[in-house]
Amino acid sequence: MAQASVRLKRPLDDAALAGVGAVLGRSFAVTALDRGGEGLSATVSDDVSDERLREALVQVLRVSRHAASEQGFAHDPADWRGEDAQPALEARGDVRRLGPGLFAFGGAFLAVRAALDTLVQAIAARQGAAELAYPPLWPVGVLRDINYFHDFPQLAMLAPGVAPDFAARTRFSEAHRRGSGPGAIACTAEDGLAPAANALAPTVCDCCYWLLRGRSDVADAAFTIHGTVFRNESSPAGALERLTAYTMREVVVIGSEGFVLARREALLAELEALGRGLGLRCTIEAADDPFFCNDALQKGVLQGLARLKHELRVVAFEGRTFAAGSLNLHNDFFSRSYGYALAGGGTAFSVCMGIGLERLAYALFCRHGLEPERWPAPVRALLGLGAADRAGQAGLPGAARTG
Amino acid sequence: MAQASVRLKRPLDDAALAGVGAVLGRSFAVTALDRGGEGLSATVSDDVSDERLREALVQVLRVSRHAASEQGFAHDPADWRGEDAQPALEARGDVRRLGPGLFAFGGAFLAVRAALDTLVQAIAARQGAAELAYPPLWPVGVLRDINYFHDFPQLAMLAPGVAPDFAARTRFSEAHRRGSGPGAIACTAEDGLAPAANALAPTVCDCCYWLLRGRSDVADAAFTIHGTVFRNESSPAGALERLTAYTMREVVVIGSEGFVLARREALLAELEALGRGLGLRCTIEAADDPFFCNDALQKGVLQGLARLKHELRVVAFEGRTFAAGSLNLHNDFFSRSYGYALAGGGTAFSVCMGIGLERLAYALFCRHGLEPERWPAPVRALLGLGAADRAGQAGLPGAARTG
Repeated sequence: MAQASVRLKRPLDDAALAGVGAVLGRSFAVTALDRGGEGLSATVSDDVSDERLREALVQVLRVSRHAASEQGFAHDPADWRGEDAQPALEARGDVRRLGPGLFAFGGAFLAVRAALDTLVQAIAARQGAAELAYPPLWPVGVLRDINYFHDFPQLAMLAPGVAPDFAARTRFSEAHRRGSGPGAIACTAEDGLAPAANALAPTVCDCCYWLLRGRSDVADAAFTIHGTVFRNESSPAGALERLTAYTMREVVVIGSEGFVLARREALLAELEALGRGLGLRCTIEAADDPFFCNDALQKGVLQGLARLKHELRVVAFEGRTFAAGSLNLHNDFFSRSYGYALAGGGTAFSVCMGIGLERLAYALFCRHGLEPERWPAPVRALLGLGAADRAGQAGLPGAARTG
Repeated sequence: MAQASVRLKRPLDDAALAGVGAVLGRSFAVTALDRGGEGLSATVSDDVSDERLREALVQVLRVSRHAASEQGFAHDPADWRGEDAQPALEARGDVRRLGPGLFAFGGAFLAVRAALDTLVQAIAARQGAAELAYPPLWPVGVLRDINYFHDFPQLAMLAPGVAPDFAARTRFSEAHRRGSGPGAIACTAEDGLAPAANALAPTVCDCCYWLLRGRSDVADAAFTIHGTVFRNESSPAGALERLTAYTMREVVVIGSEGFVLARREALLAELEALGRGLGLRCTIEAADDPFFCNDALQKGVLQGLARLKHELRVVAFEGRTFAAGSLNLHNDFFSRSYGYALAGGGTAFSVCMGIGLERLAYALFCRHGLEPERWPAPVRALLGLGAADRAGQAGLPGAARTG
C-alpha cells in the first residue's frame, strides 16, 4: 500500500479528477483519490513506495494539464435517445458472456457487426485499399521493436505453449485433467510452459509496417485489414464496451508525408460521415493512448500535444460514452522503429483508422433500439440491411429463445 | 535419451512404420525408428525412462493395428495435375511468412480463402444453420471440462497477461524494452506473468456445447461459426499446411441421435460434393485425432474403431497430402462432459464439419494454378469468383510487386 499527496495551484474539476483517476488506474490499484484543501491525495493497494506513487501522481497531473480536449466535430441529433441495450440483447441471446471480457455473438447483433465491417470496407475501397489478413498471433519481436511491452505492460498478452518435450507435456497433462480445479493455469516453466515466441495482437495493422522493415523502396499505398485484437482488460460490470478480445476493421495508409496527410483528411471526413450517417450522438476529439506510468506516459503528453490521435466518441446512453473508432497519425514512428524508407530515401509516414466493431454495433442498438428492421431507413440503407438481415437471428445455443 | 524395442508378430510395412513414427512424434523427439529382424526399435532424445518409452511404443503399435484406413470416398480427376504453389504465392506477395506457423495473406490467395468461407456458409445455410461468433480466447474451463489439456498438451496454448499490480507491470515493462533481445519471452512469475484465465481456441465449436451446460431443454438445431484456431505446432519446412493460427468455418448440429445422424449423412454428402466440385484429388477416410501418448491414446483407439472422425484428405501435389476438412461425430461426448440433455431428458448428440480455409485454398492453387481467373469455369462458378476477384489482388506491403 502507498499514499501520496500533491499540492495544486488550481483546483481540479470533476472531469479532471475522473481523468486523473482513470490514467492512474491503468498502472495502480487505486483505492482512494481525494481532493482536499489545496491538494490531491491518492491511495493505492500496490506494494510500491510512497515516493514512487507521488512521482506517478505528479506525472499524471502534468499529462492531464496538457491533454487536448478540443472538439473537432460533434453530432447531436435532435431526436436522440439512448438506452442500454445490453440487458435485452443478453436476454434474447444475441449476446452471451463467456467470461470476463469475452462474449459470444449471434442474431441481429452479429448481423449488424458484419454490416459495419462491410461499411468500413467500403470506406477503405474509396481509398483504393487492398485487403490483407494477419493472424491474431504475432512473433514477440513485432511488438518489442515498437516498445509495446514497455509502454503498455498492463494490456499485453502472450501466447505460450507447453515445452516440446515429453516430461513437460506429461507434467502439464497430469496437472490439468478434467476436474483439476476451476482456476487459472499458472504459466511457469515448472508447470511445463515454454517461453512465449508469440504475443496476441493488440491491434491489426502493425504487421503492415513490420513487413516493410529493411526496405528502402516503399511507395504510397493503402490497405485494409479485419481481425481480432486483444487487451488484458475487461469491464468489471461485464459491459460490452470493454472486451478482452474484439474485432476491428482498419484502413492503413503508408507513404510520403503529403500523401499520408491528405489521406488522413479524407479519413477524418469519412469518420465524421460515419458517425453522422449512423445517427449517433458523437464527437471526434483528440485523445491519448493508455500509456503505463513510466517514461511512456511522457510520450503520451507529446502525442496529446501534437494531436496525433483522434477518437470517435459515442454517447451510447446517458452516462455511457466510449470511443468506437480512432484515427491515428503515426508520423514516422513505424518507419523509424522498424527501419524502412521511401523509394529515393525519403521518410515514410503512416496513418490508420480503426473501428471497434462490437462497440459501434452496441452503440447502434442503444441508439436505435433492438430491432434493426425498425431502424431509420437511412441507417438501414447505409448498413445494407435489406431482406437478408433476419438470416442470422436464431440466437445462440442456450439462449432463451432456442433449445 | 531413451531407447526401447518390441518384438512384432507381423512385420510392419512402410506405411505402418511411417504411421507409428508420426504418432510417436506427437509426444517425443524421435531420433531413430528402425525395423530390424523381428522387432521395432525407437530412440528418443527426451529425458524419459526406457520403460516409459517401451510402454508408449506398445500403445502406439496397438493403436496403429486398429486404425481404420478404409476409404469411404475417392475422387481422382483424370486430368489431375498438382504443383506446390507456395513458392510462387510467396514470390508475388500473396503469402508472407511472419514466423514459424504464422503467415500474412493478401491478393488472390485471400480472395479465394474468403470465397471458400462463403461456400461453406452456403452448405451451412442448407442445414438451416444460424450464424454465431466466438472470440478466439476461451476461459480455460471450457477446455479443461473436455480434458483437452490432458489429451492434447502438445497442442495447447494459453493466454496470460501481466499480473495486475504496479510491481509486476514495472518488472515486465523494464525487462522487455525495445532492444532487450530477439528471443521468446519467459513466462515466469518473476517476469510478472499472471496465471492464464484464458486459453487460445483450438477449434471454433466448443463454446456451442459449453453454453448449453446445465440445460435440460436442448432442441435440435444447427449453427455455423467462422473463427481463428490455434495449435502449438508449425511446419519445420515453413509449409502452408501446418499453421499455428489458421481460419476455419464449421457447421455444427446438436440434438437427438436421429437428427444428428441424419444431418451427418447430409454433411458427408456435402463434403464429397465439395471435394468433387472443386476438382480436387481427394478421399474421405476415417481418421484419428493427435492424442498425446497417455491414456488419451487409448481413447483414440476407441474413436478410430467407431470411425467417429472422417477427414477430407487432399493430394495437393505428388508427395503432399493433408486433411483440409473433417466431419466429427461426437456422439454424447459434449453433453456428458458439460452436462446437458434434450427436452424430455434424452441424450443430446452432436456432429461438426470443419473446413480449414488456408489448407483448402492452398490445395486449390496447387491444383489449378496461380491465376484464379484461369481456373475451370465450374470451379470458378462454385467459388462465386466473378469480375470482383481482382479486388484484393494488390499483394502485401513489402511484397515484390508493391512498394
